[in-house]
Amino acid sequence: MRQGSHSPIGVFDSGVGGLTVLKALMSHLPHESTLYLGDTARVPYGTKSGEVVTRYSLKNAEFLLERGIKLLVVACNTASAVALPALSAALPVPVVGVIAPGARAALRRTRGGGVGVIGTPGTIRSGAYQRELEAAAGAEGVKVKARACPLFVPLAEEGWLGGDVPRLVAREYLADFARSGVDTLVLGCTHYPLLKDVIAEAVGPQVELVDSAEATAEVVASLLEEQMLLAPGGGTPAHHYFVTDVPDRFVEVGARFLGRPIHSAEQVDLSF
Amino acid sequence: MRQGSHSPIGVFDSGVGGLTVLKALMSHLPHESTLYLGDTARVPYGTKSGEVVTRYSLKNAEFLLERGIKLLVVACNTASAVALPALSAALPVPVVGVIAPGARAALRRTRGGGVGVIGTPGTIRSGAYQRELEAAAGAEGVKVKARACPLFVPLAEEGWLGGDVPRLVAREYLADFARSGVDTLVLGCTHYPLLKDVIAEAVGPQVELVDSAEATAEVVASLLEEQMLLAPGGGTPAHHYFVTDVPDRFVEVGARFLGRPIHSAEQVDLSF
Repeated sequence: MRQGSHSPIGVFDSGVGGLTVLKALMSHLPHESTLYLGDTARVPYGTKSGEVVTRYSLKNAEFLLERGIKLLVVACNTASAVALPALSAALPVPVVGVIAPGARAALRRTRGGGVGVIGTPGTIRSGAYQRELEAAAGAEGVKVKARACPLFVPLAEEGWLGGDVPRLVAREYLADFARSGVDTLVLGCTHYPLLKDVIAEAVGPQVELVDSAEATAEVVASLLEEQMLLAPGGGTPAHHYFVTDVPDRFVEVGARFLGRPIHSAEQVDLSF
Repeated sequence: MRQGSHSPIGVFDSGVGGLTVLKALMSHLPHESTLYLGDTARVPYGTKSGEVVTRYSLKNAEFLLERGIKLLVVACNTASAVALPALSAALPVPVVGVIAPGARAALRRTRGGGVGVIGTPGTIRSGAYQRELEAAAGAEGVKVKARACPLFVPLAEEGWLGGDVPRLVAREYLADFARSGVDTLVLGCTHYPLLKDVIAEAVGPQVELVDSAEATAEVVASLLEEQMLLAPGGGTPAHHYFVTDVPDRFVEVGARFLGRPIHSAEQVDLSF
């Protein structure tokens, strides 16, 4: 299939979390059609090795590419952190991850106290945010403090977004940030925006939270414009959803992430 | 490869949890060699559909069968709950799950107040424990109360076994059991024994906790004896470990579950 401005944007994530990125894309680029793939049969990626996450990411990308996407958004922080070089090398279309846009957005916001990053064990272990922040800060430098928060994903997936348990978990993970002078905190996992109330409470009002979704959508918009691949206005964009496990839970939980109903999702098998 | 009394017992689980079952097997059957497969690249199973868990279980079983096992233990409650019929139909060796042994052990312990079951969403949704308990109770009947506790797996995996967060989560899930008159509680997930202190505290001292590992090892011992497949004494049994993601974390966390060091684990790829 030939790619052109009418072709859809492809987005993949380990599950539902990337729908927060899709939501930002839909809002910034209302004429674009999209194909979203949630790898729900192999979720989560954040606790798995870089090797395995890269293998899964290449499979996901291949699936979307066969359906004629003009650009790929890696909406999963863990996959962006560990698989972006392999994806960019393998794909004939532009590939955009969420890490570089998120890191640059944080640098624009910090008031000099330093930037905190929270994410899955895979994302934090990779050092991708830390590297990206330091590279973008250049000679000026930036103080970076990073921490993995593995229980935030299951809390968000289970819908435990407020109350004593999430508040206590957030305090446990984030007490050091509150004391460290960091003034900006990157939510380096697409699940975390759902927990932003308890996260904000744990780090205190002096810390600004940065979500990569908006920043990523802006990067995608400029890239499409630059490459003259923006969809022409006028038509009705189509949005399709694919999942690797049965769709029921994706359709139900996904609506919470996307902020609008998902009418159906098609189950596909990427294991062979 | 031909199976005989010298052949190893195969054990699989979605990850490290099944090592609690392996530990009981080693203690009951000290002459037996074992092959353990932890599907760490696709863990967890408990939040996935029956269809996907069955597909993964068949792949795991096939891998172990090719290595000449004489009997398969499905050490994962979720896989036992949803995939046992498919596994038994597909395999030429006996297949033992953890659900029936656990249910029967609970019935032997209850003092008439009823049996509680906690497990993953997949296990509880399948109704396998509920069916097994009712079938084994027969005309006498038994009151069964079941509840999914999805956050227990990530808590156990992260090693948050005591303190305020696990205690609060346990209270949230288990308050109803404490009030319901249930006198026996089946820990229907191999991760849960690690949390048994906070679970016991939440349900109160009148509730006895039942862990399927011991009961499963007893069933395996009788089955091997019946079929004259017990390993002869005298030799030194061999224990091999296979994982589908990189072995580091399995070797480290697994020791906590097995109660003794794991010197090495071999990474294998079951995705193709």
